This record gives sequence, structure tokens and C-alpha cells, in this order.
Amino acid sequence: MKQSKLFTKTQKNSPADEESKNAKLLIQAGYISKEMAGVYSFLPLGLIVLEKINKIIKEEMEKIGGQEILMSALQCHDVWQESGRWDDKVVDVWFKTFLKSGGELGLGFSHEEPLTKNMKNFICSYKDLPFYPYQIQTKFRNEKRAKSGLMRGREFLMKDLYSFSKDEKEHNDFYEKISEAYFKIFERLDLKDLTYKTFADGGSFSKYSHEFQTESDAGEDIVYLDREKKIAINQEVYTDEVIEDLGLKKENLEKVKTAETGNIFTLGTKFSDALNLKYKDEKGEDKSVFMGSYGIGPSRIMGLLVEIFSDEKGIVWPKSVSPFLVHLVSLEKNEEAEKIYQKLKENNIEVLFDDREKISAGEKFSDSDLLGISYRVIVSEKSLNSGGFEVKKREEKEAKILSEKNLLDFFISEK
Amino acid sequence: MKQSKLFTKTQKNSPADEESKNAKLLIQAGYISKEMAGVYSFLPLGLIVLEKINKIIKEEMEKIGGQEILMSALQCHDVWQESGRWDDKVVDVWFKTFLKSGGELGLGFSHEEPLTKNMKNFICSYKDLPFYPYQIQTKFRNEKRAKSGLMRGREFLMKDLYSFSKDEKEHNDFYEKISEAYFKIFERLDLKDLTYKTFADGGSFSKYSHEFQTESDAGEDIVYLDREKKIAINQEVYTDEVIEDLGLKKENLEKVKTAETGNIFTLGTKFSDALNLKYKDEKGEDKSVFMGSYGIGPSRIMGLLVEIFSDEKGIVWPKSVSPFLVHLVSLEKNEEAEKIYQKLKENNIEVLFDDREKISAGEKFSDSDLLGISYRVIVSEKSLNSGGFEVKKREEKEAKILSEKNLLDFFISEK
Repeated sequence: MKQSKLFTKTQKNSPADEESKNAKLLIQAGYISKEMAGVYSFLPLGLIVLEKINKIIKEEMEKIGGQEILMSALQCHDVWQESGRWDDKVVDVWFKTFLKSGGELGLGFSHEEPLTKNMKNFICSYKDLPFYPYQIQTKFRNEKRAKSGLMRGREFLMKDLYSFSKDEKEHNDFYEKISEAYFKIFERLDLKDLTYKTFADGGSFSKYSHEFQTESDAGEDIVYLDREKKIAINQEVYTDEVIEDLGLKKENLEKVKTAETGNIFTLGTKFSDALNLKYKDEKGEDKSVFMGSYGIGPSRIMGLLVEIFSDEKGIVWPKSVSPFLVHLVSLEKNEEAEKIYQKLKENNIEVLFDDREKISAGEKFSDSDLLGISYRVIVSEKSLNSGGFEVKKREEKEAKILSEKNLLDFFISEK
Repeated sequence: MKQSKLFTKTQKNSPADEESKNAKLLIQAGYISKEMAGVYSFLPLGLIVLEKINKIIKEEMEKIGGQEILMSALQCHDVWQESGRWDDKVVDVWFKTFLKSGGELGLGFSHEEPLTKNMKNFICSYKDLPFYPYQIQTKFRNEKRAKSGLMRGREFLMKDLYSFSKDEKEHNDFYEKISEAYFKIFERLDLKDLTYKTFADGGSFSKYSHEFQTESDAGEDIVYLDREKKIAINQEVYTDEVIEDLGLKKENLEKVKTAETGNIFTLGTKFSDALNLKYKDEKGEDKSVFMGSYGIGPSRIMGLLVEIFSDEKGIVWPKSVSPFLVHLVSLEKNEEAEKIYQKLKENNIEVLFDDREKISAGEKFSDSDLLGISYRVIVSEKSLNSGGFEVKKREEKEAKILSEKNLLDFFISEK
């Protein structure tokens, strides 16, 4: 893509009305724009990053048998009344609205109830189980405060998968599988080393639920972390009893700030009982379907990546979600730049080409650092006289000169 | 994909609470499920179809320079008050809600206002224009009645592109370009022959706007159609004066029922003036940006395709949006079926494999007809004894026997 054609531009200063680093940098670089606190629109480069995060999540969900669906945001109150979650005293983040033809509606903050109800059409006998629908869909939560940019949205993207199993044993097998899939996702996002499976409150059906907590000062959670064993306890359930139960020792636990990047939850028969979702077992007897839910927030992760992977000059995207692999920066209008741009495209290398004229080299460099694309390639008279193109990783200081052939070979191998 | 793994199932009967053919068939076949009137969720096969429609639209928008974005559903009232469209008397389809922290919000039924406001960050001089952001995003409209399935949604998917140009001439060039792009989209959806560019009310800035109206008894519009010239007049503006203005003759015009599948609209400076979106021209003088908006509804189109392409047995998807190219139906458990399934997959041919056991041949055939996948391939002892596989287009009566090699060659050429 040619930068001269891109309608977004970087801004000289970061927005004054944002507190969080992720919102400041993403707005300044033109990735997102603010509609109101906790509500952002994604501009072209921001949508590319978000879609790359979505793709990684989708691929890992498909590998473990996830089947993608897309549910509605608008919610009928009846099904939520059956489960007891329509009441604002029970769920305090509802946005509610009215149908002109009569009746109150909600905007989905999660989808256990409508999905459980829908599944009555498809579950009859034990032969129909297990299965795993998931969606990447917009959720709405009426948060009182939203000052963390993409990390706490009033409208945000969520991957939510729901498991429908015959019994607890079948459920537990999948629970382990998706836990591994989550770590694969975090690995592909360069977050694995910072992310810990964390024991949290299990609700009415299980002793614990599990959160994936990623170490970051921008997070809003506190966990007690055993770095060696790579597990943590959320402070909500941090008691001597729990420490002992998990075989941990108080002296090995470190208190750290984290951001919740995922959670997996055993729902048991809470929703299937409330909404009467049953199947007939081998003996023809009615049994309640055993459920689980599994969330991960692509837009929150995008914000967190910026919090973690950035420096004083701007963003430093992990390669897997960088909007392009290469930022090709031409310092003068020259044919060589256009030629190498075409060659990179012919080789299916994702490239943003800063072909803008009458912009100083300094401005181009600072824009490039702010955008944070994985590799910067400079084409200039100087680089060409030195034998080719000046190549540098975003986070490195030193560049090296590569010939056209070596440049193409290198980026083909880096794809 | 193996049908035995697909969690959705066809239903014996079509839903009693639906009037429209598209909702009846799509629900019965397990493509969508109903949340409430005018609000549907997309199940795995339905989401595949919807994504194929989206992909066609995206490709044609990218070809004419569209840059994809994703705006928020939640809307601040202030920007809509500036344009005069916050008032329920002006716009009667708002869903409105409240922030817990104070303030009324709306759910976007369209995005002219917030986008125009956002563009102030990116438009300074004439050199920044023109450009064309677009999104495929969920819209909310509080319709009093919604009985047409996917064809009139209270929550539905919309592709909305907005053009920002220097002046009317630059605008008109793009207006023609996107008009052609729309016909390419309809061509790829097998709707071109039924779709007519229709003159409709232009609003405050231009004499006419243009609708793309597709002939269908399921439509809610009436147009007067000149079949030879392939243009039509919406009955809203059907007057002797307009007929004359367009060089048409009353006696050549046929009154037909149609569904609006797209519209393109010259907005002029209505929104840029209201929200003060200006640029500096070559002489350094302030000018208002000249705008247009261009809509097309992927989920509505999905409904319309079912209305048009279906018979008494079920859906007959156009090949370009069929959830799979091939429905492979195995009548007995046999190794040949599994083998050809693997071969088709190896050749990147999209295939749904009905590998379900203990289901009668009759039930499998009627499910296959209901689902409406472009080609049905039967593997049975009988077909194998006749030399291979029984292949039939969904809409054809006669099948033919193809050997494995011919089958693969045929579907590779059909991809």
C-alpha cells in the first residue's frame, strides 16, 4: 500500500484527553479514533492489526474443533430473565433500550443465554454432543469508568466460545485442550512469557475458574505469581487455604499487576438447567448438558500489545500482527524505490511504501517509528551508493545494507 | 467439513412464526436462528455464505480505492445534534440508550456524522482528497414492523462507503465508478439481470439519488421499469416531469415489485457544512468537502438470494456464495467416500461430506436439496458399480456418472 494514498495521517501530538499509553499511541499514529471514552473506531491500519489478531485466534479455535457463528447484539429480555441475569442488580453493565413496537431489549455483554436457548434446536441425544460454537463479535458493557483505551471498552470485540458436553469428564478434556490453545495464541502474539494461568473465583459450579493474566503495569488486576511454576492466584481468592490447596508457598509468591487477557470458565449445568437444555443419554434418560465458556478479547489484546511493545518513539508491533512486514521509506523520489516496492509485492511481502513527497527525512523516520512496523527499509541516494537498501528491525539501532536479491531473500524467509 | 461434526441440523418443518420464504428456508436448513423479529444469528453455514458475500463486496470496493475501517455502533448524541438527525421526529429508527456515567447514546443506523467528524483529523489541504473509507458493520434500525426475514432487519450488516471529494466533478467521476462496481457485485451474485439502476429522491443536494432495485415479489418497493433501457423510476418520484426528464416514455414503463439492494447518494456539502469539514484549495481558500454515501446490505442480499434462488425443495445458492462447492453424500459407510473426500480437500475444493450413519438415503437427499449447495455428489455401491460418482447440479434433474479423475478435473475447473 502506498502511504500517499492512505487517508489517515500521524498527528504531531498525542491526544490530550487520553490517559492510557495504548490510546495515546494508537490515536496519534492513526490506527484508531475515539468516539467517546471506551468506544473507538478502527481506521485502516488499525483494522489490519485487529484482523490479524482475530485470524490467529480463529485458527487456534478451529484446530480444537470450534465452529464459527455470529450472534446478534440485540437481546430479548425473556431468556435473560429465566437465568436471573436481566436484573441490573445482578448484572451492572447492561445497556438497555426499547423496541418501538414494544418491549425492552438489552445489548449483549455475553451470550450464554441466547446460545443455550438456540441449542435446543440441535441437541437431542448424547450423539449430538460435544460441540463448540464460537464467535468474534461486538460486546457492549456499560462501564462506569473507561480510561484505559482499548483495554477497557464499553464496546469491544470478544471471542467467546461455548462448550456443550455430555458430562464433567468430557468437559474437562476440552477445558485442558482450550487452555493449551490459549497459550498457543499468546505464543503467536509474543505474550506467552508474560502470561500466567491464574486461579480465580469459580462461581457456583466449580472450585476455580482460570484467567490468563498478562504482566503489565497497564493492567487492572493484582495476582500472586509463582514465577517458577508459572501459575498465579488472583487476589480475589488469595487465601492461605487456596495457597495450600494449589500446593504453593506464600514465600514464593510475588504480587504483580496484570491485565486479564483471557478466561475459561466451567459453567456446569447452571444455564442448561435454567433454560432446560437436556439430552437423552444411552439409556434414554434426560440429562442436563454440561457447559463451559471461554473468552478472549482481540481489541483489548491490541491495546495491551501497545502497552507492552512500545518505546519512547512509538509502537513496536510483534511481527505476527504488524500491519505490514516492511515499511519501505523512500527519501527522494527515485525509480529504485518504486521498483523494489513492486518486487516486494510480487513476492507477496506485505509492504507499506512511504512514497510521500515533500516530507523531510526526519519526519518520515519519526512516523515510521511511531507506526512500529516490524522492519524499516530505506531507499535513498546514499543507500543506493552503498550498494542497496538500508534495513533495520524496528527495535534495533543499527541498520545494514542489503542488495536487492538479499533483501528479497531475507523477507521471503521472514514471511 | 464432515456433516456428522456440524452442530446444526435441518428441521423437519419450517418455522411457524415466520412469514417470509427466506427466513423459513434459512432457519429450516440451519443457516440462521431467530432471536426476535428482524434479528437473527448466523450459524456456521450461514456465516460462511455471509462471509462470501462480504468478500465479493470487499474485493470490488478495494478495486476502486476503498479503504476498510470499522466504526463503533454506540453513538454520542452531540455530533448528530449538529446535523439535526438526533431528533426522533427526523430519524424514526433510532435505538437509544443511556450511559451509566450520564448521557444519552444512540445505536448507529448509518455513519455520516461520526465519520465526517473523524475526517477533520485527516483533511487539511486539497492534496488530501479524494478518498473512500468503507466498512462492513452492524447497523441498528428500530423498525416498527419486521416480517421479511433477513430482508428487513432491526440489526443487520451493511457495507457503507463514504466519498470525500474536492468538488462535484471529482465526486461525479467516483459516483460513476462505484455504480459500475455495484453492477460487478450483482453480476458475481447472479443478480445482475434482475437489478436495475433506479432514479429515486435526491434529497437536498441533488436531483436524484440512485437505487439498485432487484426484481422480486419479496421486495417492498415499486418501480416503473424500462426493460429495454435497463433503468427504472422509484414510484416515490414517478411523475410525468421525471419521466420526461429521463427521456423515457410512459408506455414503455412496467410497474414491478422490487427489493432495494443498494443505493448511492450524493450528499454534497450537507454534512461537511453542518460539521465544518473544510479543506484549503490551491489558492489557500477554505472549501467544503463534497461527500457521497454508498450502501449495500450483505445480510439483506443473503435473504434476497434465497427468495430468488429456491424451489419447492429448498435453496439453490448461486455458485459464488454456496457455502461449499460440493455436497458429497455417502449412502453407505464406505472407504471410497472417505477417499474422495480427502482427494477433494487436497485439491482445495470446498466440500461438505454427509458422512452421517443410520440416516436414510431419502432423508439425505432432501437435506441436500434444502441446503442448496451447488453440486451434489453421491457415493454409493450403485454409483461405484456404474464406474464412479453420481454428480448433479442442485437445480438439474439428471445426474451423470464421473470417474474419480474426471470428477476432480471437473471440480478443479469449476472452482
